[in-house]
Amino acid sequence: MAHSIYHSLLLPDLQLMLLEHDEQGLREFSDALIPAVAAEVLEGLDPRQTWEVLSYSSPQRQAEIFSYLSIPAQVAIVDTIEPERLSRVIEEMSADDRVDLLERMDPEHVEQLLRYVAQAERADIRKLLSYPEQSAGSIMTTEYASLPSDITVHEALERLRLQAPTRETIYYIYITDESRHLIGFLTLRQLIQAKPSAKVGDIMQREVIAVRVDDDQEFVANEIARYSFIAIPVVDNQHRLVGIITHDDAAEVLQEEATEDAYLAGGVQPLDDGYVNTPFFELTWKRGMWLVILLGAASLTAQVLQYFEHGDGGNWMILFLPMVLASGGNAGSQSATLVIRALALDETRGRVRWIAWREARVGAVLGLVLAALSFTVARMMVDGQAAVVVSLTVLMVVAIGTLAGAMLPLALKRLGMDPAFMSNPLIAALSDMLGVVIYYNAARHLIGLF
Amino acid sequence: MAHSIYHSLLLPDLQLMLLEHDEQGLREFSDALIPAVAAEVLEGLDPRQTWEVLSYSSPQRQAEIFSYLSIPAQVAIVDTIEPERLSRVIEEMSADDRVDLLERMDPEHVEQLLRYVAQAERADIRKLLSYPEQSAGSIMTTEYASLPSDITVHEALERLRLQAPTRETIYYIYITDESRHLIGFLTLRQLIQAKPSAKVGDIMQREVIAVRVDDDQEFVANEIARYSFIAIPVVDNQHRLVGIITHDDAAEVLQEEATEDAYLAGGVQPLDDGYVNTPFFELTWKRGMWLVILLGAASLTAQVLQYFEHGDGGNWMILFLPMVLASGGNAGSQSATLVIRALALDETRGRVRWIAWREARVGAVLGLVLAALSFTVARMMVDGQAAVVVSLTVLMVVAIGTLAGAMLPLALKRLGMDPAFMSNPLIAALSDMLGVVIYYNAARHLIGLF
Repeated sequence: MAHSIYHSLLLPDLQLMLLEHDEQGLREFSDALIPAVAAEVLEGLDPRQTWEVLSYSSPQRQAEIFSYLSIPAQVAIVDTIEPERLSRVIEEMSADDRVDLLERMDPEHVEQLLRYVAQAERADIRKLLSYPEQSAGSIMTTEYASLPSDITVHEALERLRLQAPTRETIYYIYITDESRHLIGFLTLRQLIQAKPSAKVGDIMQREVIAVRVDDDQEFVANEIARYSFIAIPVVDNQHRLVGIITHDDAAEVLQEEATEDAYLAGGVQPLDDGYVNTPFFELTWKRGMWLVILLGAASLTAQVLQYFEHGDGGNWMILFLPMVLASGGNAGSQSATLVIRALALDETRGRVRWIAWREARVGAVLGLVLAALSFTVARMMVDGQAAVVVSLTVLMVVAIGTLAGAMLPLALKRLGMDPAFMSNPLIAALSDMLGVVIYYNAARHLIGLF
Repeated sequence: MAHSIYHSLLLPDLQLMLLEHDEQGLREFSDALIPAVAAEVLEGLDPRQTWEVLSYSSPQRQAEIFSYLSIPAQVAIVDTIEPERLSRVIEEMSADDRVDLLERMDPEHVEQLLRYVAQAERADIRKLLSYPEQSAGSIMTTEYASLPSDITVHEALERLRLQAPTRETIYYIYITDESRHLIGFLTLRQLIQAKPSAKVGDIMQREVIAVRVDDDQEFVANEIARYSFIAIPVVDNQHRLVGIITHDDAAEVLQEEATEDAYLAGGVQPLDDGYVNTPFFELTWKRGMWLVILLGAASLTAQVLQYFEHGDGGNWMILFLPMVLASGGNAGSQSATLVIRALALDETRGRVRWIAWREARVGAVLGLVLAALSFTVARMMVDGQAAVVVSLTVLMVVAIGTLAGAMLPLALKRLGMDPAFMSNPLIAALSDMLGVVIYYNAARHLIGLF
């Protein structure tokens, strides 16, 4: 894949330049590469080094490259820069990108920073920060191209030339009246095809599809996709134009929502920063909480079974069979879900060993927690020896399930097959088989049953 | 939501106009509405009526609205039109949209149709049809804006004006040499900001990020998202420009891949036309095949259990416990996955009753099939009475699981909560509890156990 090629080819060069304080080389790095590619390479450095590289280029360039870094990387860098220098970058960033960053920063740090930001930008930032999360307002930018209706096409093109450097897009042009009401819409394509002497008001489209500033971001993203728009205008409740949302931000929302749904479907509480960038503890917690809830549900099933079976003699094993099998299947589904989604988003970059080692550790922690809980649950219904068998089985099925759930999709990918073929029910079915073998062998070896 | 408002307001008007053969009104309908909205409303008519409405507008307009219809709707309409009239629409459609349609049509019908299509378009269609599915070539369009490098900016703008009407986008302009090699790139924004006398070759960007015609469509879509491009150029193995892929088609690919992965994760074979548009038999088949595979896996677990438990007396029940519980959970996960994804894609439009009735029927069919298979599996290991208990339980858990799996996310949505909260493991856990109750009650009432 293109980005990993850039990454592996340019990173060592860059590290050498930093070591040798090669100013010339470092300046060229930021200026010669496409910002998205430069950002890609910089993700391989630590925050201090990244900022050092960026410090050699102009504030505009800094802001551009900075915007392409992942939000966690941005936050890490921000913590290493003094507010005054940071404020120059913030001023140069586009209105929506900087708000995305500020929303994730410590509020005190933001306040401190805003003191250094120019008045106009500061007001814009405060306004955008005030919209509720997940709303159209929270993802829009205020840098849209707009024109009045009473000018000619020739004049319109002149004005657009002046607006161009600071606008997110000039391909969609919104026509507003003197009170900023949205009254029309034009594309740059229509504008350059029109007669220079024609009036904008005569050639504009009067029916404009717009969304409201408090509409849900997923609805807005679906609207942009439905109409194949490059951008959609955002209006307030008086139909005044307040911003636009561009196609790339909409696509990102749809990807985020799809990821969130995939995580939830697999029983993982959504991660803000994706599988690879989420720290170990957070990752384990967001999986563990669901596994505990599901173990709770399974313990009710054990009690229902006890009502019918009473669980005398060796028969106690049936009580916890659904619980031990579900635990392994759930843990496996979680890993498979995370890995399959990371593959789809091209996040893994072939780090198979890193993933295996991480999942082994997550599996061990989750296994120990669930084993302790399942011992407690089992001990309320059966004797200590039996409870040990149950908890030891849970430990093993969770640990093995977690690791296998991550490795099976990666193995399919390696074999050139679709990793998503390893569906959650299939992982659960494989885990069931394994779970029975472990459960009965634990019973046989620990307390001589069977 | 906007589209359902259009839909419910305009559809009755349109049906009345058709009834009264109101030519004036029907012509206005196609000409006054934004094509995407017109298509939205037309989806409420049958294929013949849709074509009747379209027949009142110009071929360009016909093609535009037609392109916004869903592919199944397009295919249905195509079957009702004579090839000669259809060929006019095909000629007017954009290169990638018409190939999407032709790929889904009966090959014989396509051959018959192509005879009526103009020579130039026919060659283009055959070329695009020849690229393998899922490749960049299969989703690209050949209608890109391109310029030579040795002309001035003024001349470039003149040429773009001429190209504009037939190009998918003119905002990204690709610079090629006389053998069509891709040598540079310019945006229209850069072009209108440049001095009219400057040479295109001097202001163009020489590093162009491009993809190859045989690259995988998901990789391409991720590239466009990574760089926030409006379009990406597609080159052959001699780096000659052969097409472009635009942001909206890339976003569609990412949505399709996310849907496919969600389906697979839930144990549903991917549906080409989404949940709502897939016919009953196909929907049932694509769920049933996975349920049967998973039942097969669960029957192996039953045999492993038999090895340990022997299954004497009332103890035979433990053998099939994982199998009956898994069947209910799997059926429920399938429905929940389909409904949650349909909600995310805004496909359901509040058709709760329609979904409930459909899932009840799917559940009944799947329940009967799995009951028959599980009877066969059980009968190989235990007596007929016991096998009846197993198969009856499977019938009930699958039927109830299917319906409940669809209704629970819809209920959450109704309560203003995130429907995706109904994760597959949670549905499986609820289904386990219910499954135990059904299993033991079946045993009690049918053969007097417990």
